[in-house]
Amino acid sequence: MANLVYLNGDWLAASSAKVSVNDRGFLFADGIYEVIPVYQRRPFLLNLHLERLQRSAQAIGLAIAPLASYQSLVTELIDVNDSVDGLVYLQLTFGADSHRNHLPSQPLTPTCYASISPFNVRWDIPTPVKVATMEDIRWLRCDIKSTSLLGNVMLKRACQQQHADEPLLHRNGRITEGASCNYFFVKQGRLLTPPADHLILAGITRTWVIELAQQLAMDVSETPVFLDDLMTMDEVFLTSSSREIQPVAQIDDIIFHQGQCGPVTAQLIQAFHTSKRHLIQE
Amino acid sequence: MANLVYLNGDWLAASSAKVSVNDRGFLFADGIYEVIPVYQRRPFLLNLHLERLQRSAQAIGLAIAPLASYQSLVTELIDVNDSVDGLVYLQLTFGADSHRNHLPSQPLTPTCYASISPFNVRWDIPTPVKVATMEDIRWLRCDIKSTSLLGNVMLKRACQQQHADEPLLHRNGRITEGASCNYFFVKQGRLLTPPADHLILAGITRTWVIELAQQLAMDVSETPVFLDDLMTMDEVFLTSSSREIQPVAQIDDIIFHQGQCGPVTAQLIQAFHTSKRHLIQE
Repeated sequence: MANLVYLNGDWLAASSAKVSVNDRGFLFADGIYEVIPVYQRRPFLLNLHLERLQRSAQAIGLAIAPLASYQSLVTELIDVNDSVDGLVYLQLTFGADSHRNHLPSQPLTPTCYASISPFNVRWDIPTPVKVATMEDIRWLRCDIKSTSLLGNVMLKRACQQQHADEPLLHRNGRITEGASCNYFFVKQGRLLTPPADHLILAGITRTWVIELAQQLAMDVSETPVFLDDLMTMDEVFLTSSSREIQPVAQIDDIIFHQGQCGPVTAQLIQAFHTSKRHLIQE
Repeated sequence: MANLVYLNGDWLAASSAKVSVNDRGFLFADGIYEVIPVYQRRPFLLNLHLERLQRSAQAIGLAIAPLASYQSLVTELIDVNDSVDGLVYLQLTFGADSHRNHLPSQPLTPTCYASISPFNVRWDIPTPVKVATMEDIRWLRCDIKSTSLLGNVMLKRACQQQHADEPLLHRNGRITEGASCNYFFVKQGRLLTPPADHLILAGITRTWVIELAQQLAMDVSETPVFLDDLMTMDEVFLTSSSREIQPVAQIDDIIFHQGQCGPVTAQLIQAFHTSKRHLIQE
């Protein structure tokens, strides 16, 4: 089946979907996005994603349509493509201007682009990954989910060169997040994760994992975590909408739980799988 | 005359020039650019612009064509459009992928886009502008001239709301630059400007003004400048390829030289006009 994408009211083959060179998304990265997992035709935590989309839009001053219209768009995207498991990508920009100006020369019509790609959903415990610490070079408004992502991409490239799966970013030794994920640490039975300030993008999966941990009566704390603390951690995992909960075997030279998924991480992964099953059976 | 733009080998009307939604420039701001002034059909300091383009490309890991090909492209752009005074915009991205990944899934063909827009060249002393100080929220690699510009755009928007023409950015009180310009300060006959480190984009006009000042036997120093020093400055001006040298009348509540263009600034503006005349008469 041909994969169709949505662009400004039209349904098109991805190869035919094009935006103006004067789109502010192309010239200035003046846009925002969301990635929403779909399990068995059902978007997961869609409201949380759309509320964050609205927060991002407000932060950059972009007037967007009512959230219900994006909800309908996601449903239509799944239907049109007859998608079962998928990852929805939704991007909004300030739209195309007549020419390039840092500030738009006239009121513009925002660009809305949405696509869905296949998603190989996991129901097992994923193989733990290796992570490399790196200095966080990104801007000071990482709480905005914007397409101004060159820093993230550069850090991913640096990571690939070190044969690591993801960076663990820090500012002067204080841990922030990954290039496209959040981190959690287990220390003496407590679950720790950096606070949702301007230096991280508070992931929807991060929010959901905190919720699941609280349901499991775990002691969860959003608190600063430092590189110097890593030696004392019993387990580490990362979270993102596309990777869900991913155990971390190793950060630089430090190995956690003999490189295996630890018990707290495993318990949370099982709880996450259960919440997916509930969604599907609703 | 219809304005034609260049996109990946084609000459097109701007309204027909479109890039794939899967272009990494659109999805990740994974690209770089230059803006080059053209005076009377002649690009100004083109080699310096192209050398910086190469440095930006190297910093983000983008393999680009030999610089001579961009030199030819700029010449062709001027000829095709029969431009007299203009601003060339040249953008390169990592190109279009088959789908969205932080790291490309395959070797890609870079996207090359170039356009020229009218440029109202000044030969007089411009009216001094008003500037507002703001915290620099951008990333730590501002030395790369990338399209990851949302921070710059947000700062310009904040500035507009304050009825100021440009922000003067600082990190914890240490001045960096504007959202699309560099700053110079005159203090007791000395010309001061922040050093070309990773926190600023070292403008070609900035480089040229330093050169002109040295030719005029001025005492020029690339040195940290702090907000606390502003009260002691005799003159302030900003530089950019499109604004050349622009006197600054006011920063927040501090007025310089009674809001008029100061003598050192005026001398540099005249020297700049002379160098444009030399270019034209070459």
